[in-house]
Amino acid sequence: MATGKFRPTLKEVSRQAGVSIATASRALADNPAVAASTRERIQQLASDLGYRANAQARALRSSRSNTIGVVVPSLINHYFAAMVTEIQRSASNAGLATIITNSNEDATTMSRSLEFLTSHGVDGIVCVPNEECANQLEDLQKQGMPVVLVDRELPAGSTIPSVTSNSQPGIDAAVKLLAHNNAVPIGYLSGPMDTSTGRERLDSFKAACANSKIGEQLVFLGGYEQSVGFDGATKLLNQGAKTLFAGDSMMTIGVIEACHKAGLVIGKDLSVIGFDTHPLFALQPRPLTVIDQNVEQLAQRAVSILTELLAGTVPSVTKTTIPTALIHRESIINSTLRKKDELSNE
Amino acid sequence: MATGKFRPTLKEVSRQAGVSIATASRALADNPAVAASTRERIQQLASDLGYRANAQARALRSSRSNTIGVVVPSLINHYFAAMVTEIQRSASNAGLATIITNSNEDATTMSRSLEFLTSHGVDGIVCVPNEECANQLEDLQKQGMPVVLVDRELPAGSTIPSVTSNSQPGIDAAVKLLAHNNAVPIGYLSGPMDTSTGRERLDSFKAACANSKIGEQLVFLGGYEQSVGFDGATKLLNQGAKTLFAGDSMMTIGVIEACHKAGLVIGKDLSVIGFDTHPLFALQPRPLTVIDQNVEQLAQRAVSILTELLAGTVPSVTKTTIPTALIHRESIINSTLRKKDELSNE
Repeated sequence: MATGKFRPTLKEVSRQAGVSIATASRALADNPAVAASTRERIQQLASDLGYRANAQARALRSSRSNTIGVVVPSLINHYFAAMVTEIQRSASNAGLATIITNSNEDATTMSRSLEFLTSHGVDGIVCVPNEECANQLEDLQKQGMPVVLVDRELPAGSTIPSVTSNSQPGIDAAVKLLAHNNAVPIGYLSGPMDTSTGRERLDSFKAACANSKIGEQLVFLGGYEQSVGFDGATKLLNQGAKTLFAGDSMMTIGVIEACHKAGLVIGKDLSVIGFDTHPLFALQPRPLTVIDQNVEQLAQRAVSILTELLAGTVPSVTKTTIPTALIHRESIINSTLRKKDELSNE
Repeated sequence: MATGKFRPTLKEVSRQAGVSIATASRALADNPAVAASTRERIQQLASDLGYRANAQARALRSSRSNTIGVVVPSLINHYFAAMVTEIQRSASNAGLATIITNSNEDATTMSRSLEFLTSHGVDGIVCVPNEECANQLEDLQKQGMPVVLVDRELPAGSTIPSVTSNSQPGIDAAVKLLAHNNAVPIGYLSGPMDTSTGRERLDSFKAACANSKIGEQLVFLGGYEQSVGFDGATKLLNQGAKTLFAGDSMMTIGVIEACHKAGLVIGKDLSVIGFDTHPLFALQPRPLTVIDQNVEQLAQRAVSILTELLAGTVPSVTKTTIPTALIHRESIINSTLRKKDELSNE
């Protein structure tokens, strides 16, 4: 077994119990060939050591499943669909198959998925965590299941390796551009405060506004759904926003929807900054300027760390961050043209 | 166990072997407490009866996993992401969890996924089949695994229940509209000929052209990818197509990309018929007229048939088809305006 120090092997259980591997195996299978008192003692020891039934099944099969589980919060969100697809490609290159579960942003669904994956033979898990499942994920790691978090991380204190975006470089560049073009006030559509991505991006936005000395801007506390983006965009436009800045893919679609329904032409009547690289964002009449998360690299690093864990290596870093970047297209209004327009309207 | 007549139970194996359930169980676990010759005999019998290791594990656990497996060919294709999401919602309503595998249109990947799902405790499978996996799927069904095909079906002769779209109503209405508007020649981007959807939609298109008496039209034999749609659209435009008609979601994005790059405004410079209901198709400057497959109903019916199979009921119909419909928006050029344009150009 390659999972080394984390997951106690059958051999380790048998060694500590002072019996042969065969006896330990039989005892854990509750085989009456082993005396009842010995069986009980070995089962108790295995439980204390965090030895898992699935690890047992695996040892009995003398092989790994060579399959990893991936847990994401949505699949209609193109960013996560692209992430899963790239995780699967990377895993396949490492000789691993992939099975996927979709939590639909629901902690109970995620909890059940983790339970199923763990008890049905995956060798490791890549998870976009719901914070309500923090304890379960920590327990899984303690019990020796290799786990890597991707996209989101758990609040401080978690020792589970994570691969997340650093939104600061992309958001800094975007706000600097908007400030330069005087495309203010900016209306920022924030992700939810119970996700690390929601908090981290809002912090980046506020820091970028301070850096660019444009003062406090409009913020809508939203969620990762198109309908929420639509509502937020509508509200921010009513508050006088000249730029809509979406904090994720789904809210970007909501922003496009709100502009479409209000008859506003993006890049002409208002500026828009989108998030992530959906193919149709680049095919808008004025292609969207976006913050790009480098989803391929996020996925590849997560798989790379998981394969290290599967090989029994302790990763050298717990937190890996991948910088975002601004992809400048045509959805930001040129300030010079803007001023001319304003003059001609006066 | 609810899977009734299809899957031989441990009890059935023990009955036919003339031994107790406990002995049959031990023999199948290769427990040396059972004489080697008896073990061999029972193992052979179980194999002949199609008794599966996972069924055994399940019987030993005395419970079902209440989890279904879903196998789709892509997740970055929004149509399949929406299908999986709706399958999961419907399954959840029926008290079932869902795990997902993505075959990436690859038969080997699908085959491994089916193997993993079957041997790791799912109660049933909803599958968008690759035709190269036909035998494996038929075998699974014979061995008692409840299987339902969705979106695509297997060539004639398969007895696995399927839920597919009937493209004829939607395509008929589209071609009728195009003929009425004289938006010809039509360039049709067909799906691949090794999928039932590719063949069925092309047949529907040809029948619709015959019905509308517009004669043979341009056809590009493509595949379910954006890049293929882009290449096909470019080729068909060069051949003089006045309308591009995409045979799926991904090729629709490729068509939008080709028009974008050629500087052609959809609904003004050419007509476009898309396929499926991606939210951004309706948010194009001239919203796309599309063929809608009713993905929710496809998903719901597939789950409903699977739950019947799980309850041991034999479904009354093997083939279920859901009609497509034309959603008429603004991407078809009005023939009256067109004629005026043509006159002014002369």
